[in-house]
This record gives sequence, structure tokens and C-alpha cells, in this order.
Amino acid sequence: MAAGKTHSMHNELAFIERFLAENAGYVREKYGDRAGLTVTAKSHATDLLTEVDLTVQKRAMEAIAAAYPGDAFVGEEGEHADPPENPRGRCWIMDPIDGTSNFVRGMYPIFGISLAFAEDGVAQAAGVALPMTGDVFLASRGAGAFHNGRPVKVSEVQTLDACRVDVDFSGVADREAMLRKAPRLLTAAGQIRCQGSAVASICQIASNDADAYVHMSLSPWDYAAAQLIVEEAGGIATRLDGTPLRLFDGGKGTLFSNGALHESLLALLDL
Amino acid sequence: MAAGKTHSMHNELAFIERFLAENAGYVREKYGDRAGLTVTAKSHATDLLTEVDLTVQKRAMEAIAAAYPGDAFVGEEGEHADPPENPRGRCWIMDPIDGTSNFVRGMYPIFGISLAFAEDGVAQAAGVALPMTGDVFLASRGAGAFHNGRPVKVSEVQTLDACRVDVDFSGVADREAMLRKAPRLLTAAGQIRCQGSAVASICQIASNDADAYVHMSLSPWDYAAAQLIVEEAGGIATRLDGTPLRLFDGGKGTLFSNGALHESLLALLDL
Repeated sequence: MAAGKTHSMHNELAFIERFLAENAGYVREKYGDRAGLTVTAKSHATDLLTEVDLTVQKRAMEAIAAAYPGDAFVGEEGEHADPPENPRGRCWIMDPIDGTSNFVRGMYPIFGISLAFAEDGVAQAAGVALPMTGDVFLASRGAGAFHNGRPVKVSEVQTLDACRVDVDFSGVADREAMLRKAPRLLTAAGQIRCQGSAVASICQIASNDADAYVHMSLSPWDYAAAQLIVEEAGGIATRLDGTPLRLFDGGKGTLFSNGALHESLLALLDL
Repeated sequence: MAAGKTHSMHNELAFIERFLAENAGYVREKYGDRAGLTVTAKSHATDLLTEVDLTVQKRAMEAIAAAYPGDAFVGEEGEHADPPENPRGRCWIMDPIDGTSNFVRGMYPIFGISLAFAEDGVAQAAGVALPMTGDVFLASRGAGAFHNGRPVKVSEVQTLDACRVDVDFSGVADREAMLRKAPRLLTAAGQIRCQGSAVASICQIASNDADAYVHMSLSPWDYAAAQLIVEEAGGIATRLDGTPLRLFDGGKGTLFSNGALHESLLALLDL
């Protein structure tokens, strides 16, 4: 990428940082008052949507339209989930709350606001905020990844028995796929965790708190920001067959890792 | 149990509460400085022990010996793991840090100090503190369970598709057992989480943040306190075949739930 474009990403990254800071407080406040939330089930009884998801997404759309008129927008909620007409044009990709079921219920409040800016078909600037822990991850292409302002780097863990892998048991079809394709991985990895928030799990690889994350059908808003963050921290992301993960891949299985473990983990999958 | 004994548990419960309050701060401080910890692998590369586990257990043993001379002690670490000579006598059961691997590594710090007092072969008073979230659970037999001072009650969730189940993929043998015995449960439950701390998962059932917890080989220090807490909150605990879970069962598979879901979940296991 041209140096001029790297430089210009400064504005988009600053926009993301500001948006996350402004909205993390709102989400935190709503979490504290979550007994009063209106919760709607989407595809199944625990695929949940709240007014908070909708509000955060709406605020992002309005702020982007004001600051960058004409940019495309892709978001998890409502009628905004389709890839943009021009997949190489300027586009913002958002998950207003990744981990809504943890937001609705859970002493363990792990969920994140995710916002990425893409151009030329790849994310150029990205941010993830975990409102309840105060963690903020930011990255721009070629300029590294940052956790609460400090540069981060993936782990150097190289052996399966010492690695920590996050997995996701989300929808029923994904569970069946996980049990069919990943039993050897589930047995061989040193530690298995399942947190219910893709953006949190992927960012934890960037910050050396985990080594890998496997999901059987991730959507663009789940990874657009986090993928850039983990790549800028030295990690890698592919589909489960080892081919590159593209920005608007829909529902593909994905593996994110520290890089060192990637081939070993792919080899444990039964595709 | 005689009313007199219920009354007398007040002292033991107050002792537990005080011990947890005094030691949660120490664990919190050590977590903040965990880069400097000495970490030892026990049975495998991610079955970890730190000086903090040892210190908290040693402090408990000393405090118990001073306050209740002659009482037996069972703890996870060192040479204290065997059941007491008299399983119906006065006994304290502790896990100094349940979830040590999360203590050593993890942006999301979910681990707990667990301490129970037992007599007549059952826990009579129990406490669990999660130092990094500030959550404290206390219970005494017949007097209810409390989360940060407020009485708690398990959920009323009755249907599998709406339930949240925590599981544990701990040691390799446990993983194989989980994949062999619980594939139907892993597919049918509304949400699956895997946090890596039994005491946290079980207490979250008590506080209505989760509905059930399955483990393939839990040890007494993992559940002695949390079992009383969840039972006093209206939940139940059994072995995987539905028979009662006993205080000194060693390495048995266990199911904890809100009660309403218990039979449905047991029926999904392939034993």
C-alpha cells in the first residue's frame, strides 16, 4: 500500500477510536441496567438482539454518513448485512455488540463493539472495545496493533500442548460442524475456552492472552476489525482449508492464530 | 440438621468470609504482577501451579489451625489432597486458586478462591471469591446463598434451547470423555461456554447467570464450596448418572443445574 494511503488512515482510525470511546460508556451503562432491556430472539432462542445493538449501529451509520458521506456500510443488524455493491470501495463494517448473549446474561461480561474501515478490499483501520473490561484494541494497516495504547505482539507459543485455543459453539449447525471437524483439535490443544464473543477471542490472540481461535462460520462483521488487529500484531487468519480469509467471505470457517501454531492446528482439522 | 448447629455455622461462615476478603486482595495484586510469577506444570503443560496457589493454601491452613485446632484440612495443592481419616468429622476443603491457567494467562481473569467447612459428611458453610471481578459468594446450610451480600436464586429456565451450559475441557482424558458422552448436550443446549474455572461456573448458576455446568472428573476442592452455594440458591448437583454427589467423591463426573433442567440434561448424556 502507498505511504500516502497509510498516512490517510490516521483519520479513519481516529474516527474509530472516538466512536468506540463514546459508545463504550453507553453500552456499559445499559449493561448495568440490563434487566430492563427488550430482548428479541433472531434465528434461535439464544441468538439475541437488543435495542442497544440497534442503537449503537444506528449511531455508527449516522456518524459515518456525516464524516464520510458516500461510504458504504455493512453491519450485523437489520437490513445492512449484505456486502457492498463495490467490494473494493470505501466501506465500514460493524458489529455493534459481538457477544450479545453475554451482554444480556452473564456475570462474565465479555462482549465487544467492533468497527473497521476497508478500502481496496481489505481492512485499513480497525477498532474493538470491550466496554466492561475497558480494553480497547486499535490497528491500521502497516502501522501495528495497540491494546490500551501499547503495541502488542502475538505469543511465541509453538507447541500444541502449551497452547490456548478459543472455540465457538454458536448455532446448532456450527456445533455439529465443530464436533465433526475439530475433535482432534479439541483434544490436543493445551487449553480450550469458549467465551461467546469472536472479537474478544481474536483480540486476545493479538495481546498474547490466547494463541488461536476457531469458528465454523464467521461473518464479516465478526472479524473485519479483529482480523486486522491480530495480523498487525503478527498473527494470521485463514479459512479452515488454509486459503486466505477475505473481507466479505460469508459464513466461512476460520482459523486465527499466532502464526507459529497455524499449520499444526490446520492439520488437526477433519474437513 | 439441628437448629443449634445451623446457628453455630455462623462462626465458620464469618471465618470464611474474612479469609476470602483478606486474600482476594493478595491474589489481585499478584495477578497484576503475574509476569514475575514462578509457574510450574503439574500433570501436563497447562495444569499449572504458582507460588500464589501455595501461599493462599498455606495461609488457610495456618488460620484454620489457629482458630479451629484439630480440624482436618483437604486442599488441592501439595500433600493435602487425600480425604480426611474421618470423612464425617470437622473438615475444611479448599482450592486456593481454581482456574490457575486463567490466573497465569488471560485478559479475562476468571478464577476463584474456594473454601468450605464440612461436618457430618456435608458442607455446612462455604465461600467463593473471584478476586478480579470482586464477586463473593457465601452460603451456609439451610440459610440460603448470597452474592455480594444479596440473596440469590437459580434461574427458572426450563427449555434446552434457552439454556446456558458451561462445560469444561480440562485434561485430555476429560476432553475425550466430554466428546464421547456429551455430544448431544453440546449440540442441544442454547449456549455453551467454557471458562476454565469450576467454582466460577457453578456460582454463576447460583446467581442466575448460567443454568448448568458439566464436568467429567471434578475433585472435592473444586466443588465443596460451590455445591453448597448452588444448592442453597435452589439448584442441584449430582453425578452424571443422577446419583447424589458426595463431598469426597474423587474424580467423578458431575452435573450442576438450576434443578428444572437437570433431568433433561442428564438424558442427553451417553454414559
